[in-house]
Amino acid sequence: MNMFETISEQRLHGGVQGFYRHHSETCGGPMRFAVYQPPQAADGPCPVLYFLAGLTCTEETATIKAGAQRLAAELGLVLVMPDTSPRNTGFEGATGDWEFGEGAGFYLDATQAPWSSRFRMYSYVARELPELIAARFPVDASRSGICGHSMGGLGALVIALRHPSRYRSVSAFAPIVAPSQVPWGHKALPHYLGDNRDSWAEYDPCELVRQQTFPGTILVDQGEADGFLETQLKPELFDQACAEADQSLLLRRHAGYDHSYWFIGSFIDDHLRHHAAALGLS
Amino acid sequence: MNMFETISEQRLHGGVQGFYRHHSETCGGPMRFAVYQPPQAADGPCPVLYFLAGLTCTEETATIKAGAQRLAAELGLVLVMPDTSPRNTGFEGATGDWEFGEGAGFYLDATQAPWSSRFRMYSYVARELPELIAARFPVDASRSGICGHSMGGLGALVIALRHPSRYRSVSAFAPIVAPSQVPWGHKALPHYLGDNRDSWAEYDPCELVRQQTFPGTILVDQGEADGFLETQLKPELFDQACAEADQSLLLRRHAGYDHSYWFIGSFIDDHLRHHAAALGLS
Repeated sequence: MNMFETISEQRLHGGVQGFYRHHSETCGGPMRFAVYQPPQAADGPCPVLYFLAGLTCTEETATIKAGAQRLAAELGLVLVMPDTSPRNTGFEGATGDWEFGEGAGFYLDATQAPWSSRFRMYSYVARELPELIAARFPVDASRSGICGHSMGGLGALVIALRHPSRYRSVSAFAPIVAPSQVPWGHKALPHYLGDNRDSWAEYDPCELVRQQTFPGTILVDQGEADGFLETQLKPELFDQACAEADQSLLLRRHAGYDHSYWFIGSFIDDHLRHHAAALGLS
Repeated sequence: MNMFETISEQRLHGGVQGFYRHHSETCGGPMRFAVYQPPQAADGPCPVLYFLAGLTCTEETATIKAGAQRLAAELGLVLVMPDTSPRNTGFEGATGDWEFGEGAGFYLDATQAPWSSRFRMYSYVARELPELIAARFPVDASRSGICGHSMGGLGALVIALRHPSRYRSVSAFAPIVAPSQVPWGHKALPHYLGDNRDSWAEYDPCELVRQQTFPGTILVDQGEADGFLETQLKPELFDQACAEADQSLLLRRHAGYDHSYWFIGSFIDDHLRHHAAALGLS
């Protein structure tokens, strides 16, 4: 089955904001995502930035709340924003807990039943979705960047660190950088990956960066009024890991900002310019 | 009772995005509104722009979807976004119909029972709310502008045309300009105002502009792919009324844009600059 459906397409900043649904082989069911095509996409392929959202979010969240399209239209950057997990899986325990299951896929490939048959967001975002985007939208896939927020920041860092030649740029807002060491990871990773912590390391930026650095500066913004800062995020762990691995990292701390999309919206333009520079747009 | 409650305040673009609730004497119950204070407000009073939302919306809609805060922060403009009606009124017929009742106050003072005891959004937006804002927030009320979308565009035009010395600037996105002549008005106005069409004229921009012009250019943006364009909006009627009344009007039609906040977001910066110029900010 190759179902691909346009849910809606609307004019935005001279381009097109669309929502789409398709059958994902990787995730064994329908998946949704949003794409913003800037005006320049009408004339030919544009670089593409993937944005991965956090816990509880969908493909609509950053699309509506981040305010990224205005500058993307100016720069000529396609934006792709996927959902955060498969939906309507019917698995026991897949709904009702915002930190695990649907809406909380953690951008990994689950190895434990029943999750392993559907919760494969790592391969979905790193392989299947980019192939679909390249086939259906006017993108220059050789110029791809990846960004994310919180759990999506984890996804962006993991995918970029494991595929350093596939993405030219990576950035994150308030990312989970050490899932092996924080309660969110301690809760979700055993369900998805089992108790062998070696498998957790494949999805832990602090572990990954020690094995393979990213050829470019990683931009991370963190609000100092973020309620998850000290228990779940711990950016100092990534700061230390990058320093030890000789990974270039620009970690900015912002007084007064919390974990919300108001924080993301306040600095999204800086992230777009970070990616644009690496993608040859500025 | 002078209940005033801060629901939330969060850092945004160097300023503060807040949501508030208070007891409204005018509307006989609690009302909610949002205020964005730009960074400049920390140093002293700033000009203020009111934004009135349309059918089905709340104080959250434009706050989250319009993307106005980024440029407001740059310009030094306070943004005030009220709810579109009283809530939880308990009146029969007040809920369940998106075109009438709660979420559809039409920014008028109802004269018909039971609506007349609560649905007084005209006086609320034109008098009580500005007094509250002036008392509680760092605004220079002598420099006020008003803007709105659809039903809120109706409200902005009506309030500005009836108080041309109180607002220095007015603009609208896809406004209802002739409620007396379109189905939305034909449905709501008899309930709120009765069948005497003379009373309808007090809330009809096409009628009002013939009696009293606004001392400045009115900016109106309209999408040509707006599904309500031909049946409910009819901007050509306002164009004609303004021409006959010698009212300066800049009516811009935009190919491909619909009635949504994607349309508003695409042109909100133009509106902020329109107001900023009249408010002495540029």
